[in-house]
Amino acid sequence: MSAKIFVLSVAVLGATTIIRAQEPLPSWNDTAPKKAIVTFVEKVTKEGSADFVPVEQRIATFDNDGTLWAEQPIYFQFAFAIDRIKALASSHPEWKNEQPFAAALSGDKKALIASGQKGLMTIMAVSHSGMTTEAFTKIVAQWFETARHPRFNRLYTDLVYQPMLELLGYLRANEFKTFIVSGGGVEFMRVFAEKSYGIPPEQVVGSSAVTKYRFGADGKPELLRESKILFIDDGPGKAEGINTFIGRRPILAFGNSDGDQQMLEWTAAGNGARVCLIVHHDDAEREWAYDRKSQIGHLDKAWDEAKAKGWTVVSMKDDWKTIFPPATQ
Amino acid sequence: MSAKIFVLSVAVLGATTIIRAQEPLPSWNDTAPKKAIVTFVEKVTKEGSADFVPVEQRIATFDNDGTLWAEQPIYFQFAFAIDRIKALASSHPEWKNEQPFAAALSGDKKALIASGQKGLMTIMAVSHSGMTTEAFTKIVAQWFETARHPRFNRLYTDLVYQPMLELLGYLRANEFKTFIVSGGGVEFMRVFAEKSYGIPPEQVVGSSAVTKYRFGADGKPELLRESKILFIDDGPGKAEGINTFIGRRPILAFGNSDGDQQMLEWTAAGNGARVCLIVHHDDAEREWAYDRKSQIGHLDKAWDEAKAKGWTVVSMKDDWKTIFPPATQ
Repeated sequence: MSAKIFVLSVAVLGATTIIRAQEPLPSWNDTAPKKAIVTFVEKVTKEGSADFVPVEQRIATFDNDGTLWAEQPIYFQFAFAIDRIKALASSHPEWKNEQPFAAALSGDKKALIASGQKGLMTIMAVSHSGMTTEAFTKIVAQWFETARHPRFNRLYTDLVYQPMLELLGYLRANEFKTFIVSGGGVEFMRVFAEKSYGIPPEQVVGSSAVTKYRFGADGKPELLRESKILFIDDGPGKAEGINTFIGRRPILAFGNSDGDQQMLEWTAAGNGARVCLIVHHDDAEREWAYDRKSQIGHLDKAWDEAKAKGWTVVSMKDDWKTIFPPATQ
Repeated sequence: MSAKIFVLSVAVLGATTIIRAQEPLPSWNDTAPKKAIVTFVEKVTKEGSADFVPVEQRIATFDNDGTLWAEQPIYFQFAFAIDRIKALASSHPEWKNEQPFAAALSGDKKALIASGQKGLMTIMAVSHSGMTTEAFTKIVAQWFETARHPRFNRLYTDLVYQPMLELLGYLRANEFKTFIVSGGGVEFMRVFAEKSYGIPPEQVVGSSAVTKYRFGADGKPELLRESKILFIDDGPGKAEGINTFIGRRPILAFGNSDGDQQMLEWTAAGNGARVCLIVHHDDAEREWAYDRKSQIGHLDKAWDEAKAKGWTVVSMKDDWKTIFPPATQ
């Protein structure tokens, strides 16, 4: 149930009246985080309030992996990359005896990790470059239609967090502009972000590859995805990316790991009312429990800073009534 | 007089009714370009029409220099750079005898041009880097408050084109999202784009410098502008920039020079109704007349392609009633 359907927005001559339902964020328990969010939204949207923020400055940024959807046992984009290696393997018989491909093909996680950063980058490059942007989008879209998560046996796009969908809708109903600011690939995320989150392509900030403009065999212009990286939108790159791609400092930022620390710091350091939030994955039963010792979604320094600075830490276990929306198929 | 004030937009329950004034684009003559624009906008916004385009896909991209505002006798951003060199000169006595600084300080255009690409890049680097993004924004804003154009003795932000302001307003009234896609610096343009054009920072795509996240002397995070270039949004870079920063292909694109050729090609190559436009500077009396032989705003190949492909060429002399809005001070 989306917050959007609770909202009747009537805009006449530029003046906007929002008639709110009795209960925003229905999948959130009535604990501190929900109260912090609702209090914040009410004060920044109340005209005449000392904390009032004009509509155009209501920028909210969300990390994606581990914040808007799950990220275990491996980042979903990496699951896509491995499936892509498998799909290409018949044209590359040599991969059976060549690392990191052999490890990816046999599912040998140990050997894959042993191949290190260089091995992972090789798999990402082979699966993500050498085709046009249009072809890449089609490949990703096809993967999302059929690939299923190993634990839940559900489509990956079904593993978005219901409470976050409600939060995105609630913020937009209050005239926030919602952005993704993620270390994930921008062209990967744009395939599903609009449908899954209601976030349009132009509000997705992510890591990107260099592309090359050229004319295809059909005489039409196309953009070739190269294996060279243009921008890494992670850690300090998130503050840099917000500045370069959005050009306005958020007043609300939401993350879940140390990769989000600088985005949260950058948001907190602005003038006026601010709210910074971190999802803590502490629900092994319904999702996963991991933080300081996890390689994926490593949450250590940002957690300490959250405690020191009074950022809001959301417990999946205690603060969320449900985790995922109902399955679509 | 802006088209905006003619428009009453009533949005109830997501359904939108636009009540248009009798006459959109009042500063445009009733010649072919205005007809082409109005015909295009009417068909893509008419529900049930074969050419109907959903609101979220109504992306319009505009070059800035020479398309939304003037660019002679030198790009305004370069005028800023030279003024910045002058402002810094007292701390750099050695510049009097060092090129390209000596040329910039004495206004010796010949020597400046003789310093070549390297000389121009040095002036841009010294004037645009080594400070925080916040400091840079303040410097640019102060310059805009006082610097005056040599020919018109007007503020640079007064030299925007009135017909284009009306076009931006007309498109937005018809639920287009308007973007700048310019070779100019993104952080330079964002200083005035919202006030001058109604285009918010997050809809300005431009060339950018690498920035570095760090903590300042006050203990707050800041972004240092480095002299390294992140992205050049010109020529093929405009098609690449549209894909990377916006992620959606425009249905309307407007430029004035060969630097816009690929943006126009990229726009034209999409499916469905499209319109590509070029401003031709042919009005030496009210503005300037230049095209194939000009170093600034060089219009040659894109003009040939416009003729070959039926893109709309707008004559400033014949198609625009007025060029600039009234002076603000």
